[in-house]
Amino acid sequence: MKIKMQIAVIGNDSGCSAEMFSFSEDLGKALVDNGYVIVCGGLGGVMEAVCKGAHQSASYQFGCTIGILPGENADAANAYIDIVIPTGMGIARNALVVHSGDIIIAIGGGSGTLSELAMAWQMGKKIIAVNQFGGWAEKLAGSQPDKRRIDFIVGAETIDEIINLVKDVSP
Amino acid sequence: MKIKMQIAVIGNDSGCSAEMFSFSEDLGKALVDNGYVIVCGGLGGVMEAVCKGAHQSASYQFGCTIGILPGENADAANAYIDIVIPTGMGIARNALVVHSGDIIIAIGGGSGTLSELAMAWQMGKKIIAVNQFGGWAEKLAGSQPDKRRIDFIVGAETIDEIINLVKDVSP
Amino acid sequence: MKIKMQIAVIGNDSGCSAEMFSFSEDLGKALVDNGYVIVCGGLGGVMEAVCKGAHQSASYQFGCTIGILPGENADAANAYIDIVIPTGMGIARNALVVHSGDIIIAIGGGSGTLSELAMAWQMGKKIIAVNQFGGWAEKLAGSQPDKRRIDFIVGAETIDEIINLVKDVSP
Amino acid sequence: MKIKMQIAVIGNDSGCSAEMFSFSEDLGKALVDNGYVIVCGGLGGVMEAVCKGAHQSASYQFGCTIGILPGENADAANAYIDIVIPTGMGIARNALVVHSGDIIIAIGGGSGTLSELAMAWQMGKKIIAVNQFGGWAEKLAGSQPDKRRIDFIVGAETIDEIINLVKDVSP
Repeated sequence: MKIKMQIAVIGNDSGCSAEMFSFSEDLGKALVDNGYVIVCGGLGGVMEAVCKGAHQSASYQFGCTIGILPGENADAANAYIDIVIPTGMGIARNALVVHSGDIIIAIGGGSGTLSELAMAWQMGKKIIAVNQFGGWAEKLAGSQPDKRRIDFIVGAETIDEIINLVKDVSP
Repeated sequence: MKIKMQIAVIGNDSGCSAEMFSFSEDLGKALVDNGYVIVCGGLGGVMEAVCKGAHQSASYQFGCTIGILPGENADAANAYIDIVIPTGMGIARNALVVHSGDIIIAIGGGSGTLSELAMAWQMGKKIIAVNQFGGWAEKLAGSQPDKRRIDFIVGAETIDEIINLVKDVSP
Repeated sequence: MKIKMQIAVIGNDSGCSAEMFSFSEDLGKALVDNGYVIVCGGLGGVMEAVCKGAHQSASYQFGCTIGILPGENADAANAYIDIVIPTGMGIARNALVVHSGDIIIAIGGGSGTLSELAMAWQMGKKIIAVNQFGGWAEKLAGSQPDKRRIDFIVGAETIDEIINLVKDVSP
Repeated sequence: MKIKMQIAVIGNDSGCSAEMFSFSEDLGKALVDNGYVIVCGGLGGVMEAVCKGAHQSASYQFGCTIGILPGENADAANAYIDIVIPTGMGIARNALVVHSGDIIIAIGGGSGTLSELAMAWQMGKKIIAVNQFGGWAEKLAGSQPDKRRIDFIVGAETIDEIINLVKDVSP
């Protein structure tokens, strides 16, 4: 009984600035405050920040943070991952992060995040991209990666905007 | 902060007898009673039973049942899955079920379960096989699929035996 | 004894214009003329064109065209695929197309191609992007998707330029 | 235009005896003599032997041996692999070896081969198991891993028997 929406948060591993980390932490807290579960790639930077924030929510309980790792070793997960899916699939695991999110939120992001944004678009997933902090999220906010869909990657600047957008598509 | 051990339970999807279903349900309840989280393939039969049992535990809380699906569609998960990982990878997802378990418990089982038992052995995972209900679990209980390891697939008949074996390898 | 370099060609499936198809066909012929083997996603558009061109080369022999399919069914391959790898992994197979190329050549391209470009960059693969026909190839030609590498996605306009670039990195 | 049948050969990597190696070599030669292409896991033991034999056939030409590797590095392929598919997926690549074979032939085999036999059965693939040299091939020859199919894993003792069985199912 999947009773909570799963939100995939993608973004920088290395190259996560202090501002981006702090924003991601606030986002993680707000998502759990609102009853959502967070899926991510399980590593550092934005992934760690969003999970750290999740643990700060008054609504936090075990199971709110899920890390889908590229390697076989569960120990590679960041310190705030509750549930670990070690795939041993390398970067092909990026597809699984996206498959596992009902909605995708992107923050900053290098080429790994770009591959996830591209696959999320292919899969028809709703995508929210933070239009600050640079990276592929800001670059693609408000755009269509190709013409297969009539909607857009939705840009959002604040945590409130993101949460409202997430609520809009909740069942 | 992976604070709970993840136990992968594998076994029949179709061909799950009433006895096997009931046993699996009791196992799911006992695992959650003892503070473990259940990972499975997310579909029917043994997978459904063990998750249904998990929900009956007084210790049950959201996040105790994780389903790693072969398809892309989260709706294929059984009614007791809390967290869904739709992989879109077909039977290659069997590898992920095994990677995600700290310990593997097998009940009954046809060729799908057999592939998981074989991969669990390859990966060096501790395996407990129920030596009743037939299937590959009973067939391989007490055996070594090959000589790469010096230990054995451990046979167990009762829920208590299984829980004690799981506790033995807990950190 | 891997005696031939494998060149992964990525690009539009649907949305492949006549000009793009013709260019891709010429590229496929030129690659096989020069002793290379072609790896692709095995479907239509650019993938079909490059394999069709391969078959037109005087140097063509069986085994020059390899298709790594998203589905389980080998019959989904285009008519010019010699060797079929049906993965059953859905879009996660994009990672395998890129892993299988010693060099990546991109032509046009929607979000599927974009995910492959992004993963190729992550994996440190040499990437040649055709800077005509639009799509993500032209958009990213001459750029760095992120700062993890000091080189660039190399833009090329003609078949000759591409072949020379491929020869430059041959062992 | 998939003009040749792809035969997946699975079996021991380590633990391949001299007799098993020699038999696999003869099998590889016979398969290529008869116009088939060989797909395997690309590593040592039976996989290396069958590819080495392929190269000894008078009908050998480039493209007759395909290795689907667990790792990302093409250099891990044995010396007789013509076409390398480095998957970076670890043991989940076992599913791809089986998907890529029109028919599966098993020789000896530990738990890795067992996982492939089990998945081949699940996928409905025709399976020929050599009933000498021990291992899971001999153990499962003539059996049904489960009741989902009405046919059997066909046992065969000699190269001639195997080739005749392969011809029987050729289109």
